[in-house]
Amino acid sequence: MTEPLQHLLTESKRRDRSDILFEKRQAFDLPADLVYLDGNSLGPLTLAAKQRIEQVVSKEWGHDLIRSWNTANWIDLPVSVAEKIAPLIGAAPHQVICCDSISVNLFKLLAGALRQCLALTPVRRRIVTTVDNFPTDGYIAQGLADLLSEHDVKVDCVAETDIEQALSDDVAVLLLTEVNFRTGYRFDIQKITALAHQHNILVIWDLAHSAGVMPLSLDEWHVDFAVGCGYKYLNGGPGAPAFMYVAARHQAQFRQPLQGWMGHAKPFDFDATYQPQSGIKQSLAGTPGILSMAALDASLSVFDSVSVNQLYEKAMGLTEWFVELLEAHQLHTQFTNISPRQRAQRGAHVALAHEHAYAICQAWIADNVIADFRAPNILRVGFSPLFLRYEDVYIAVKKLHRIVTQQQYLNAEFNVKQGVT
Amino acid sequence: MTEPLQHLLTESKRRDRSDILFEKRQAFDLPADLVYLDGNSLGPLTLAAKQRIEQVVSKEWGHDLIRSWNTANWIDLPVSVAEKIAPLIGAAPHQVICCDSISVNLFKLLAGALRQCLALTPVRRRIVTTVDNFPTDGYIAQGLADLLSEHDVKVDCVAETDIEQALSDDVAVLLLTEVNFRTGYRFDIQKITALAHQHNILVIWDLAHSAGVMPLSLDEWHVDFAVGCGYKYLNGGPGAPAFMYVAARHQAQFRQPLQGWMGHAKPFDFDATYQPQSGIKQSLAGTPGILSMAALDASLSVFDSVSVNQLYEKAMGLTEWFVELLEAHQLHTQFTNISPRQRAQRGAHVALAHEHAYAICQAWIADNVIADFRAPNILRVGFSPLFLRYEDVYIAVKKLHRIVTQQQYLNAEFNVKQGVT
Repeated sequence: MTEPLQHLLTESKRRDRSDILFEKRQAFDLPADLVYLDGNSLGPLTLAAKQRIEQVVSKEWGHDLIRSWNTANWIDLPVSVAEKIAPLIGAAPHQVICCDSISVNLFKLLAGALRQCLALTPVRRRIVTTVDNFPTDGYIAQGLADLLSEHDVKVDCVAETDIEQALSDDVAVLLLTEVNFRTGYRFDIQKITALAHQHNILVIWDLAHSAGVMPLSLDEWHVDFAVGCGYKYLNGGPGAPAFMYVAARHQAQFRQPLQGWMGHAKPFDFDATYQPQSGIKQSLAGTPGILSMAALDASLSVFDSVSVNQLYEKAMGLTEWFVELLEAHQLHTQFTNISPRQRAQRGAHVALAHEHAYAICQAWIADNVIADFRAPNILRVGFSPLFLRYEDVYIAVKKLHRIVTQQQYLNAEFNVKQGVT
Repeated sequence: MTEPLQHLLTESKRRDRSDILFEKRQAFDLPADLVYLDGNSLGPLTLAAKQRIEQVVSKEWGHDLIRSWNTANWIDLPVSVAEKIAPLIGAAPHQVICCDSISVNLFKLLAGALRQCLALTPVRRRIVTTVDNFPTDGYIAQGLADLLSEHDVKVDCVAETDIEQALSDDVAVLLLTEVNFRTGYRFDIQKITALAHQHNILVIWDLAHSAGVMPLSLDEWHVDFAVGCGYKYLNGGPGAPAFMYVAARHQAQFRQPLQGWMGHAKPFDFDATYQPQSGIKQSLAGTPGILSMAALDASLSVFDSVSVNQLYEKAMGLTEWFVELLEAHQLHTQFTNISPRQRAQRGAHVALAHEHAYAICQAWIADNVIADFRAPNILRVGFSPLFLRYEDVYIAVKKLHRIVTQQQYLNAEFNVKQGVT
């Protein structure tokens, strides 16, 4: 099988030579011989982050200590990091802040958006989301609804295909994720936002699998609110802080309930009365985690001189090359590709269903190709465009072919479930 | 002035020689010649944290990547770090979790405690705290009350001296900080908790200026809930995650609204329906910040083989030696010591009021003694017991004496306000 497909290796190398992002791989500290198809779960270490963390630890924390809140501008990191994310999501300045986790930020946005709706139209008390959304989104919405028990707030989880019909005048907030974490199905943000606005519904977009790879134009699309992840395509490191976007037009009314001291207009006056910072900074709650935020800050430098369209085109190129190579290796008969085939309808990962997906994933990892398993039966393969080569895709498919044809995944060692996958 | 006080230096050195914690200073990477009296704002770098961060970055993130959630037990850090904090606060296992910030955790606890109260006694709708509490505590309580507008929840901020009179049967939750961040005034946790319980009030204690230095026996004192800080006396690094305590007897009923995926019983099943983890782990929201949590984990190793009473006795010894040296240098006539004089009524810092406190703090810092300024006129001097020497206290007072007697603080350079202090 291998010999006749040699031309595919040649073609992979040719694509790498014409890849304008090819040199960006040098910015990462990736293990040699590893094909990392899981940058959408945890982005790899950048050299810039490694260096920056060393500086934050030894000089800023170790030597300058408390003074670094001023001298190293720790205090400004939630804004300065956010302003580096803003161009990647199509946001003009002063609308993004970097802080907390997606879960916590979703709570802020949902509570703030609901408050705005109730002030205008007290009968709107429904939050609509999808059944197949990343679970934390639905959990947080339900947690808020339970807390507001006497407000009679309801959360409706509908199928992705039923979203348009679910938009009606009693809906307050629509909470959607652009790219489905399992299937890679992609919503049309611009279209859905416009439809929701026809019903005066506020829309929150979860960009966990989008920021840093999908072409986003939040301002142009009149998006109301958004959250996104710092540790996936932005490569901020494990548990890096998330970000949130509040459109400028909402900022005067927007108030979120986790009003900690860092969101106060003058936090170091230590007033007993809360006075919100004007604008996006009201969304800060407690003291930001500096080590993680500095790592994210440094990693964002890798995006310098890169356009979102370049990132997207390369991610699509890798994804489609992967699917093509699967077919060339007859692997498309072994797996069910549950990701949409049309480019416009999917994100930067491919989901392959297989009865033995867990064991196949383990066998692939043992052979130095890291992808992700998602219950119950999905092999999730992510194509982060800054460090992956077309040749990596070739190597990965070749190894997958061997695992599947030789049924290596039946080995007992690959069938022992580990804690997290 | 200096000569006759030579015996005080001798006495400082004698006290250092008999200090059983003296060798612990070796565990810190402190700049030479610096006297750091601000460990209650940002604890200094430990050698263990420095080494651990290097390992987390290069090996766990850089080399092992996503696998480290299993192989380096990242997934267990919120619990394993918390179990190291538990003995420092007098908590048996399974009651503490490390995550998020104090602000976010206070929101969880307030919302959860209020929910418990409302379920039992729907008329209890008041949250009581102090006017002079650390501001974030009051802000978060008010943020929750505003969110629950239709529940008619009220926040009452009373003077510290009026707390006992404020406890009545319509109060749901009492939220207090053991040690006042400005004055160092200390509440008697055991006594106030018992008084509150006579009215069936649930009590949340903020241990920001307590954990790692004050002798705490949360279980024995029947405390209901608590939060504490990872970056002050626990030396976890800038913005290290906080911790929260939920007494075992409350865990079956306790539900907090920031119910993110990490608090789900089976987060990696990605169920659409939220099923809370049993016990304290329900309090997790989003993905934990691994870099900061690993740093805190490592720094906690410095507390090995140290008892809370040893920490407290040394902190009190340093504090009292500082006050004694101030008097010996006639500085007590220059400053108003607004911290309580009775040991049982104060924490591990001393607050000195002075018209020129800001400039004096700057001049002290310029002379390699770091303390904190707290608006409007307080020089806050913290005595973290693991790394401070009695001789450091002597050096600090001697320098302060020179600054005050020579009026160095009148120099223009010390009167320029910087952003954060």
